[in-house]
Amino acid sequence: MARRVGGRGRVPFARDVLKSGWDTDIRIVDDLEPPECGEGQVRIAPAYVGICGTDLHEFLGGPNFAPTTPHPVTKDTIPITIGHEFSGTILELGPNPTHPDLHVGQTCAIQPSVYCAQCAACKAGAENACLNGGFIGLSGGGGGMSEQVVVPASACHPLPANVDLDVAALVEPLAVAWHAVDASPIANSKVAPNCVVFGGGPIGLAVIQVLRARGAKTVICIEIAKRRQDFARDFGAHHVIDPTKHDVVSTAFELCGGEQPPDLAFDCAGVPSTIETACKVIKSRGTVVNVAIWERSVPFNPNWLVFREAQYQAVLGYQRKDFQGVIRALGDGSIRPKGMITGKIRMDRLVEDGYWALIKEKDKHVKILVDVEAR
Amino acid sequence: MARRVGGRGRVPFARDVLKSGWDTDIRIVDDLEPPECGEGQVRIAPAYVGICGTDLHEFLGGPNFAPTTPHPVTKDTIPITIGHEFSGTILELGPNPTHPDLHVGQTCAIQPSVYCAQCAACKAGAENACLNGGFIGLSGGGGGMSEQVVVPASACHPLPANVDLDVAALVEPLAVAWHAVDASPIANSKVAPNCVVFGGGPIGLAVIQVLRARGAKTVICIEIAKRRQDFARDFGAHHVIDPTKHDVVSTAFELCGGEQPPDLAFDCAGVPSTIETACKVIKSRGTVVNVAIWERSVPFNPNWLVFREAQYQAVLGYQRKDFQGVIRALGDGSIRPKGMITGKIRMDRLVEDGYWALIKEKDKHVKILVDVEAR
Repeated sequence: MARRVGGRGRVPFARDVLKSGWDTDIRIVDDLEPPECGEGQVRIAPAYVGICGTDLHEFLGGPNFAPTTPHPVTKDTIPITIGHEFSGTILELGPNPTHPDLHVGQTCAIQPSVYCAQCAACKAGAENACLNGGFIGLSGGGGGMSEQVVVPASACHPLPANVDLDVAALVEPLAVAWHAVDASPIANSKVAPNCVVFGGGPIGLAVIQVLRARGAKTVICIEIAKRRQDFARDFGAHHVIDPTKHDVVSTAFELCGGEQPPDLAFDCAGVPSTIETACKVIKSRGTVVNVAIWERSVPFNPNWLVFREAQYQAVLGYQRKDFQGVIRALGDGSIRPKGMITGKIRMDRLVEDGYWALIKEKDKHVKILVDVEAR
Repeated sequence: MARRVGGRGRVPFARDVLKSGWDTDIRIVDDLEPPECGEGQVRIAPAYVGICGTDLHEFLGGPNFAPTTPHPVTKDTIPITIGHEFSGTILELGPNPTHPDLHVGQTCAIQPSVYCAQCAACKAGAENACLNGGFIGLSGGGGGMSEQVVVPASACHPLPANVDLDVAALVEPLAVAWHAVDASPIANSKVAPNCVVFGGGPIGLAVIQVLRARGAKTVICIEIAKRRQDFARDFGAHHVIDPTKHDVVSTAFELCGGEQPPDLAFDCAGVPSTIETACKVIKSRGTVVNVAIWERSVPFNPNWLVFREAQYQAVLGYQRKDFQGVIRALGDGSIRPKGMITGKIRMDRLVEDGYWALIKEKDKHVKILVDVEAR
């Protein structure tokens, strides 16, 4: 437990292999030395840190991202500091700073993705699919749940004055949605598309908001849970279909005017039933965008796509342009995600009021933030 | 068996439901009246007719396309005339012809696809995915295996003088391949792509030829059967990988220079093992083009695409531009498919020397043509 990641009050993340499986050891460590802030780096005082489904997967079933051998980019091994969806304020710039938009006191959203810059994916400009990639706060390299963290200057996205630090902790999940929407044909479409979003969890709600900000004509959310249906409407879904009560394909067709099936489907659920319905709900030459990470193989018949000559587009993570797009949309008010924050907790309540609240009261919450400065 | 589709010597296609399943009744009917050639139509004397895997599926396990109730476009019901891959010579133009490039004596390749022009797919310009579509020679509307057939003038693609009528019977399967390649990012790519083609059957070989004609840098064919491996090389594959002897993913990577995995994979096999390998053989942001029609659902893990942010593009059939593209390539010699013709048979030998030869000696043949005029 000797990794030195900051001053007092942070949460390293440690695991040990037991004979019975993985046992998660999460604790606050108060005796760490502040990290050095080298050239090209920035020292950040984190403000708010969102808890993500990926954190829960690490907590319940990891390690997945958490490195058990030295991570190829961060070089770190567990125990590590956690927290990858975070905002903060710049405390210090490393020597010879090269980013003129960064200064001490500047508030920022942090882009946690790290990449090797050497693999075939990076060389092809797809660093978000880097073969050696990872995330600050999941793969080492520090994390948001600390009083100080040192990150690359390129990871800091300055915030406009009207974007609060709590909302800025939502930029990361919104960037996932922005990237997904940007990879779909909507980005180049001249006609506002009709869209179906499968799943009203945090990413589904983020996609709904981005679709509205990007000018979608109709946004239909497919969701079973009542509370999530309400969230979907709150965040801009024109319609919500409960797939246990209505036939999704015919209902979506009617809701889009009965002339043409939906142009785009976004799978933010990633369960076996969604893939078939997502393929069948779209128009000829439509696109299914898969935003979900899957746990296992599922039955799939390519003919679902063949007979409508459709495509299935997988997306992964985000790039700088996506963080920039989200922050621009927050600044001009075209995305107003504050209502996604359903709880703020102290760092020392992370496990009980954060992880377990999200696991046990899944439908009640969208996003719980850790308020790093709260005592 | 009274459907009147032409003069003497043609092959209607009939089925009856027996308790044990479908029983195929294929026979030559000699007592039919020539069809009328109305406005917007052309009377064709078919010359050569290719036998397709779809014909074999109808013969062994149909009816699939063969209409048991009136087809929404052709209005026909079985028994029907068969033969959808065909060439021929114009015998007569209907009144008030509107296609100035068509005249009596002109040789043509026939585009057999028919569509309703009214459904959402047609209205979206994807008439090849028409919800009511079909094919002359599979769905009624006459067929190539007849001395005369009347087709829409728009179905006739005039041949350059240097394209023989037997080669012209290959235009249809080549158009499937042209359409598939055209739907892939190669169409807009500035850099010649590295491509992997799964399956060395007729469509796989057609894709190989079109990829070479369209300037692919490297074409690698994945095929188990020795004879088909040879065909793949003959038609332009730079490399052939036997997946029972070599690891496809690592071998293809090496064959592409070891810097970047292949850009594109074309699945012309459509078996459970190809979909996973096709997804894993491509580069980040690469594309799998599915040209196959599938018999059932298969295990699929979307993560195969997610972690390389790749897409899976389904294609179906062809459009006018694809027939035009193939005929242009035949005319300028950039596709030379004559070697695909591994047999020519008389119409009265269709079942024995055509269907059964293709079923029993699958790897020996690529394409068997019926020579309609041979006696």
